Amino acid sequence: MDRSNYNNVLKCGSPLRFLNEEEMKEIHTSTLEILQEVGSVIQHEGAREMLKKAGCTVKGKTVFFPHGLIEWAIKQAPSHIHVYDRDGDIAMDLGGRKAYFGTGSDCPTLLDVYTGEHRNFTSKDMEDGAKIIDALPQMDFLMCCGLMYDYPITSYEHEYAVMVRNSTKPQVVTAADRESISNITKMAVAIRGSIEELARKPLFLMYNEPNSPLIHTFEAVDKLIYCSENQIPTNYSPCMMPGATGPITNAGALIQGNAECLAGLVIHQLAHPGSPIVFGGGMYNMDLKCMQPTYCSPEAMVNNITLAQLARELYELPTWGFTGCSGSKLFDAQATNEAAEFIFSIGYAGVNLNHDVGYLNYGLTFSYELLVSCNETISQMRRIFDGVQMDKDHMAMDVIKAVGPKGHYLSEPHTLKYNKEMWKPDLTDRADYEGWKNAGATSYEQRVKARTIDIIENYVPKALTPEQDAAIEAILTEVDAAAEASTEKKHHKK
Amino acid sequence: MDRSNYNNVLKCGSPLRFLNEEEMKEIHTSTLEILQEVGSVIQHEGAREMLKKAGCTVKGKTVFFPHGLIEWAIKQAPSHIHVYDRDGDIAMDLGGRKAYFGTGSDCPTLLDVYTGEHRNFTSKDMEDGAKIIDALPQMDFLMCCGLMYDYPITSYEHEYAVMVRNSTKPQVVTAADRESISNITKMAVAIRGSIEELARKPLFLMYNEPNSPLIHTFEAVDKLIYCSENQIPTNYSPCMMPGATGPITNAGALIQGNAECLAGLVIHQLAHPGSPIVFGGGMYNMDLKCMQPTYCSPEAMVNNITLAQLARELYELPTWGFTGCSGSKLFDAQATNEAAEFIFSIGYAGVNLNHDVGYLNYGLTFSYELLVSCNETISQMRRIFDGVQMDKDHMAMDVIKAVGPKGHYLSEPHTLKYNKEMWKPDLTDRADYEGWKNAGATSYEQRVKARTIDIIENYVPKALTPEQDAAIEAILTEVDAAAEASTEKKHHKK
Repeated sequence: MDRSNYNNVLKCGSPLRFLNEEEMKEIHTSTLEILQEVGSVIQHEGAREMLKKAGCTVKGKTVFFPHGLIEWAIKQAPSHIHVYDRDGDIAMDLGGRKAYFGTGSDCPTLLDVYTGEHRNFTSKDMEDGAKIIDALPQMDFLMCCGLMYDYPITSYEHEYAVMVRNSTKPQVVTAADRESISNITKMAVAIRGSIEELARKPLFLMYNEPNSPLIHTFEAVDKLIYCSENQIPTNYSPCMMPGATGPITNAGALIQGNAECLAGLVIHQLAHPGSPIVFGGGMYNMDLKCMQPTYCSPEAMVNNITLAQLARELYELPTWGFTGCSGSKLFDAQATNEAAEFIFSIGYAGVNLNHDVGYLNYGLTFSYELLVSCNETISQMRRIFDGVQMDKDHMAMDVIKAVGPKGHYLSEPHTLKYNKEMWKPDLTDRADYEGWKNAGATSYEQRVKARTIDIIENYVPKALTPEQDAAIEAILTEVDAAAEASTEKKHHKK
Repeated sequence: MDRSNYNNVLKCGSPLRFLNEEEMKEIHTSTLEILQEVGSVIQHEGAREMLKKAGCTVKGKTVFFPHGLIEWAIKQAPSHIHVYDRDGDIAMDLGGRKAYFGTGSDCPTLLDVYTGEHRNFTSKDMEDGAKIIDALPQMDFLMCCGLMYDYPITSYEHEYAVMVRNSTKPQVVTAADRESISNITKMAVAIRGSIEELARKPLFLMYNEPNSPLIHTFEAVDKLIYCSENQIPTNYSPCMMPGATGPITNAGALIQGNAECLAGLVIHQLAHPGSPIVFGGGMYNMDLKCMQPTYCSPEAMVNNITLAQLARELYELPTWGFTGCSGSKLFDAQATNEAAEFIFSIGYAGVNLNHDVGYLNYGLTFSYELLVSCNETISQMRRIFDGVQMDKDHMAMDVIKAVGPKGHYLSEPHTLKYNKEMWKPDLTDRADYEGWKNAGATSYEQRVKARTIDIIENYVPKALTPEQDAAIEAILTEVDAAAEASTEKKHHKK
């Protein structure tokens, strides 16, 4: 992987932010008040014991956090996480204001690019998805896009195998429990050679979330502890629905969301101080009219960016975001409108690890066309990040003086030299009207569809070595056998 | 007009900017160097004499500007322009970081909403356009959208009559020369009562532009002087094509564009110091592959925003921008993608007066569907401008404590109270999949089309008073008669 996306940050000026210094501190102290006074439900006995030992008050399953412990945990976690690709080359520097983009995970359905229908997602679809992400230069990491219905029991492991076989890019993985995340870890170890090498050059991050309001399930906490102990980077991000699972106002949602993140951070840092974690969350308010999450609402964008702002500016932690998604059921003008608004907002805000690119229908349907389209949008935004180059030659004083009034710049060597720096469209039409008509008078949707199909049918990703591939296969065989044995045991019991 | 759009600025944080302090000064001093050393062609004898008297060196039609005169002119122009609607209520405060939006002007063709065809623009189309702009709450001003082919000679005057009859919103007008801008002024005086009252409460701004590189035509300069003398607010904005009519690099384009703006500013301020002028320009680099202006390229957005940044931060002048437009030939996903990118960038940058909303095909084709769609996009952005309300009730501590872990917020009075503050979509679909299917499974394009047709067929704008209408009609009759006489005279001469 070349490092072309490695340094992608708006070169000048402040990032987009919605809170001033005082307001950030106000959110922070209010969060401390909630964690100390209301506490959080921690459904993991081991974690409760660990928290009690560290000074928390525990009543039943509810844990009340002292301020000092929370601030201790914030100071332990590293400010940057370096993530590497399959070949061991550095791919992402999570921290500060660099923005990286990738897909979401676990959609039940796919918007079929050939038929235009919403249908169940399969492992073949994930193969296509991994190839598409691998082929798109602006995509920095991949998630599994959809739930693979052909592997009902061991889907997490099979998802990982499909991803790592079809793309060299880093992954963010979902896993049901400690067992599946440890199986995925084995596969990544088969690529890297050892668990130590995997910790030194992380290939994947785990996706994890609390249950709003203020509940931490056994599985979520168990996975958090596993990742911390094994130095596997993870996030711990609320997917709150303000108005239903959180307060409807932005400030209220931020306080509760921050409390959920910080409770997870404390557990994570107690398990192994200094382990890498990404901070942030998605909080899309409930639309009480249609009883749906609003997803790409202005409020959701503000919440996402502001929780990341707290993480970056107050806690100095790498940040987690959502973007490039839409509530639309189609890959249409609503989808690109919402996706572009969200991508540009996230980019100007400098949120680090931004997933969900390609989601339609509130994350229930994946669209490879939206993904391909967002590659174009992100590419435009990254050119904007470069801003204005202010060296002598770019300032062009000599050529302005030489051309003067009345002249033109078309045949100037300066024009030809710097023309190559100009952003080049891939799917965006720039022809004149006649040229566009002569080329078939296509819509953007039609061009995106053609490009998506072209990648699916013709792109060949870099293969694993035969040894790596065999090791992955052996792990899968073992995992499937164990799952079958466990299922038979359950049936036998009946 | 209510003042709901009057204060629309991103509440917290710095605006999006691409130059630091040193770089802004570097662009400024380089611009002074160009104006002193290369000069500008001024094709207006009276202006050249005025400039000579003020200390410029004049050789033939080329004028060389001394630094002190330019900096004098910058200091004369006001930092804010207040623009009023037809009823005399304040509508826009141009200056600082407030962002206002309106259409472009003079497209030869319209994307017909009924047939989907590109066809010549007519006065009926402009009536529709004015009604649509009047009906859309996020549109703050109107331009004439298209060239009215049914009034070949006196089109500027008839365009203005259609605009002022069908919308109470302020206008930005185009005019061929001193005669047409003075006729338009007469019509605005008929609304306001006197030229003094028009100066006190401006109803329209004039659109004006230099010819890149560094040429100022007789008509442009003559109109600039007319506006200055009559206190009619105007812009003077290069429409440069870097790579053809300017240097291809951002820094080079900015220096030349700034020189073109500043030369106009000097003439304008010499004619009547303190007259209101808006500063900025559009500089969309030439795509050497298809020999078209790139229009919505990342480079064009950076140029537009940066020239406005210079105006706001260094010169303290109201700023001029382009946005909500696309190079697409259709109202499709490219159109909304490019428009959303540009609208969000301009909004975060805080550019004041942003025209061209609804342009397709590089400004050759107007699309009322894109305009209606952009109303939705701007509305989303303006909700984002509100950011996070940080008062006690919005922080929701009481409700977080009352709900605690395990509870939910659906039936909380706090949720119902603040639900009304949440942004409400108009055209953006938020239904679940079944709901969307049952409602007709429409695309965004289809919903926008239906809304556009609904406004065209059913919206009734507030009429002028019979006296105002009769006065406008009398001016038009006079203008047409004069034009006919002049044409006959020309024919007679042959």
